[in-house]
Amino acid sequence: MDEERFVASLRRRFPFRLGLGIGDDCSLVRRGRAFQLISTDLLVEDVHFRLGDAPPEALAEKSLAVNVSDIAAMGGRPQYFYLGLGFSPRLGLDGLRRFFAGLGRAARRWGVELAGGDTSRSAKVLIAVTIVGESEHPLRRDGARPGDLIGVTGATGGSALGLRMLLAGETRSPFIRLHLHPRPQVEKGQILARFASAMIDISDGLLLDLSRVLRASGAGARVDAGRLSFPPAYRRECRRLGIDAVQLALSGGEDYELLFTVPPRREPGLRRTGMAYHLIGEVTSGRRLRLRRDGRERAVSGLGFDHFREAARGRKR
Amino acid sequence: MDEERFVASLRRRFPFRLGLGIGDDCSLVRRGRAFQLISTDLLVEDVHFRLGDAPPEALAEKSLAVNVSDIAAMGGRPQYFYLGLGFSPRLGLDGLRRFFAGLGRAARRWGVELAGGDTSRSAKVLIAVTIVGESEHPLRRDGARPGDLIGVTGATGGSALGLRMLLAGETRSPFIRLHLHPRPQVEKGQILARFASAMIDISDGLLLDLSRVLRASGAGARVDAGRLSFPPAYRRECRRLGIDAVQLALSGGEDYELLFTVPPRREPGLRRTGMAYHLIGEVTSGRRLRLRRDGRERAVSGLGFDHFREAARGRKR
Repeated sequence: MDEERFVASLRRRFPFRLGLGIGDDCSLVRRGRAFQLISTDLLVEDVHFRLGDAPPEALAEKSLAVNVSDIAAMGGRPQYFYLGLGFSPRLGLDGLRRFFAGLGRAARRWGVELAGGDTSRSAKVLIAVTIVGESEHPLRRDGARPGDLIGVTGATGGSALGLRMLLAGETRSPFIRLHLHPRPQVEKGQILARFASAMIDISDGLLLDLSRVLRASGAGARVDAGRLSFPPAYRRECRRLGIDAVQLALSGGEDYELLFTVPPRREPGLRRTGMAYHLIGEVTSGRRLRLRRDGRERAVSGLGFDHFREAARGRKR
Repeated sequence: MDEERFVASLRRRFPFRLGLGIGDDCSLVRRGRAFQLISTDLLVEDVHFRLGDAPPEALAEKSLAVNVSDIAAMGGRPQYFYLGLGFSPRLGLDGLRRFFAGLGRAARRWGVELAGGDTSRSAKVLIAVTIVGESEHPLRRDGARPGDLIGVTGATGGSALGLRMLLAGETRSPFIRLHLHPRPQVEKGQILARFASAMIDISDGLLLDLSRVLRASGAGARVDAGRLSFPPAYRRECRRLGIDAVQLALSGGEDYELLFTVPPRREPGLRRTGMAYHLIGEVTSGRRLRLRRDGRERAVSGLGFDHFREAARGRKR
């Protein structure tokens, strides 16, 4: 069983009658004229991060960023959040103070307030953030239709490249910075909500997250790897480390750029907003995801990282 | 630093301008004519539970129960919840299925729906539930006034007794059942919200949770141990195990009964509802908590279990 099938079985078992439940970046419940968006994310030491790789301030910032990104992924405005924090003696009182200092700065940056939480000791540090936001017109991931164009708000693969560097013992690079300090695309999300037909944030890899949009929408897609954006430094560092730059841009996670689909007739309007993005393919009928690379087109499967499958197999990073 | 001071420092650093934030059982944000209540709780393997002590179904039930109890503690109606689940290979796919079977049954019992979540692998099982509820007249913990009577909705100490039995290797007892299957007092909470001046659920021990009400309210109290409720089986089992029954009723946690204060003039109205409760003392001016036991009265300090202090010292159960 993989995560997709597991989530599908949960959706069947736990129908949510008050709104949109499991299966998108956030749940949606109508509140007066707007919708309330809520999302929860779990970060676990030695699964999502290693304590030595990042200062506690950065850890706090990232744990909030990934949640802010879930709100951004539906075009919402983040408002406030709840923190469940398991802290180990290894973090220490000083580490705890630094964690909350970083949390405070990140909260101010994204305009969100801490509304509550719970703390516990724990052998491994663990961070469970639940975030609340709102939107008059939230954008779901199930609205992609054949013929829609597929766009991304920025280059992908950089965060995964930074992670590779960290794991190789490197400590300084703009890509390590990108990995430790993800930038949720809140403003772009709100712009896109006015034009796009479906949206998701790229947390687990471009193709895997695209496949989630396609599955939810009952559609397929054709992606042209030649249209991906590659900053020169990214290509250079991939070459130095012997990494396939295209493959990493397609499957590397934690970019937190937004992936969206937009009907061709609405794309000129989006273009006129001046928002930066690039188009990488189009939605097709059928359920297949096809990738064009180096003049050849092939069907894609086995798309990215799946916590559920990894855990069921008992593997660790 | 203890948990109280830590929470106080967080409240100063993270003011919540949209409603009531850190420091009560739930946050409160006004939504139209009602208030939205949200609470989050973290349960960590080998801190809050041991995998061998309870079947996965009971673990799921309990993790939801403690959150439902937070809504009950403010007199609210629980509505829906979010689950962050870290699962280890030791739980296994079968354990996971049983966890969700138990979660489904518990959700139906308390009339709440699963609205979203996140899963991750994790060395230790960890469960982070965030629950949403509502109330037209939520009851906070900071409204106790000198002269108010102090009441409890049921006997305390039974869950802690069950935990002692589990730790001693016993497996069958009504008290072990009580420990594994806590019963949040949702209906009583809604009745109490019409009469009481302050309320909290007893999660960390009667005296410690009372001290939180007193601190929030800027008051003291006198508690008479002679007025506590002791079911005969509780006394008998405490005697058999050489446990101080009164001490355990005062400091043992996870009862999830409600502790409340009520102005004397409103108490007859509460009595007339027919709801079971008993009075154990009264709120006083000054900040001291005094306990009367065996004809002697003394000031109380060092009241119960404090995760924060334990973790700062690096201890484990």
